[in-house]
Amino acid sequence: MADIDAVRRHIESDAYCETLGIDLVSLEEGMAKTRLEVTDDLTNFHGTPHGGAIYSLADAAFAAASNSDGETAVALETNISYLEAVEVGTVLTATADKTHDGGRTAEYEVVVADEGDERIATFRGRVYKP
Amino acid sequence: MADIDAVRRHIESDAYCETLGIDLVSLEEGMAKTRLEVTDDLTNFHGTPHGGAIYSLADAAFAAASNSDGETAVALETNISYLEAVEVGTVLTATADKTHDGGRTAEYEVVVADEGDERIATFRGRVYKP
Amino acid sequence: MADIDAVRRHIESDAYCETLGIDLVSLEEGMAKTRLEVTDDLTNFHGTPHGGAIYSLADAAFAAASNSDGETAVALETNISYLEAVEVGTVLTATADKTHDGGRTAEYEVVVADEGDERIATFRGRVYKP
Amino acid sequence: MADIDAVRRHIESDAYCETLGIDLVSLEEGMAKTRLEVTDDLTNFHGTPHGGAIYSLADAAFAAASNSDGETAVALETNISYLEAVEVGTVLTATADKTHDGGRTAEYEVVVADEGDERIATFRGRVYKP
Repeated sequence: MADIDAVRRHIESDAYCETLGIDLVSLEEGMAKTRLEVTDDLTNFHGTPHGGAIYSLADAAFAAASNSDGETAVALETNISYLEAVEVGTVLTATADKTHDGGRTAEYEVVVADEGDERIATFRGRVYKP
Repeated sequence: MADIDAVRRHIESDAYCETLGIDLVSLEEGMAKTRLEVTDDLTNFHGTPHGGAIYSLADAAFAAASNSDGETAVALETNISYLEAVEVGTVLTATADKTHDGGRTAEYEVVVADEGDERIATFRGRVYKP
Repeated sequence: MADIDAVRRHIESDAYCETLGIDLVSLEEGMAKTRLEVTDDLTNFHGTPHGGAIYSLADAAFAAASNSDGETAVALETNISYLEAVEVGTVLTATADKTHDGGRTAEYEVVVADEGDERIATFRGRVYKP
Repeated sequence: MADIDAVRRHIESDAYCETLGIDLVSLEEGMAKTRLEVTDDLTNFHGTPHGGAIYSLADAAFAAASNSDGETAVALETNISYLEAVEVGTVLTATADKTHDGGRTAEYEVVVADEGDERIATFRGRVYKP
């Protein structure tokens, strides 16, 4: 069992999250919450927030939750459902919860929501622990 | 039927792709290829390329291919399978092909490969044309 | 708004569910629960319950829940994660809940569990309402 | 390396496929093709072929292809996209191909088509080799 503060500092050293502006809001064993304000830099050619940015927010919560016990876990498979369009300027959060732990693999569900707690996207991922 | 050069210029105006360094390599109706060099800015806390960056590369090819006829298409559902780890510095390409067109929805498959043409990830996505 | 008993009788007329032995346990608007005893007829060549049978149980709950308001809904995309192996003779249930309703599409999550309430599989599906 | 005829006989002993009427049409290392005539027994409450039956056909091809070298492989994650409606009486085939082999896991793509070779559904699956 690792020290959760040390794990948190390790997770917060994520360069990609810094590039996009994704923050780790909370971290517990098997759970994590991330946050992203959708700026103009994160829009697609339609002028709306890029699916890749929304996915990345969810994936960051998934990675944090699945590595929260200090053991390395790598993504095998993920899927995402885009449910509602969002505007530039929206602050999104992604909340990841462990739904199953099978030893060598584990499953996480992630819900992306806006400030009004409306569900924007649902993400599900499976990790492998080498 | 839109002018493919005009569509290409529109797709290349993608702010998110510019943020990450994703380039549009080629565009034809129903097909697109994108390219990304995985720099240190795109790594996760394990020091390896972030899943969100690989997904974003695939998603950018998917978005380009599915909007290549000038008609707006938005992502409904996507999934990705992470097959091989890659090193920082690797140049990845994602090639999207239309596998089905049902009028209101269409399906695309995207293969992410490294310089040696090894498959790194497989992505599948479905769009809705409003 | 349709009469839920009439909708239930319609859903219970499902020939495929009768072929496999899948029963509708409960039905409410946006929710459904199905049940299947995994018999020898439903095993694969490894002698264990076939993934297709487990999927079909989940899919039946998804179909019931997504058609529970009497409006036709058809499956667009689904995915399933197989989490635990089960023995022949196990009685499985699948519980489907609506997680988002976007008008033309809706999303459902389905959890498959054994008698001891252990999660065996997770299913997520998206429907289109023509 | 196992004897492909012995592997084929083993795969053809699948009780679930016999229950549904799914036949193994061809088997080679990393590839398999299955066939199903959609009878009235396989319809849902809308009177059209059940998604579970179409999935099962694809899953049977996936299982055959992923076990074609005689080594046990079990499904971790699968997803399916339903592209075209089909009529009762249609004869469907599912063709599975290995798209990646990573040692402990492997990925397969399966295309379901009708007699006229129109794509009805696309399936992707990942197996784990214990």
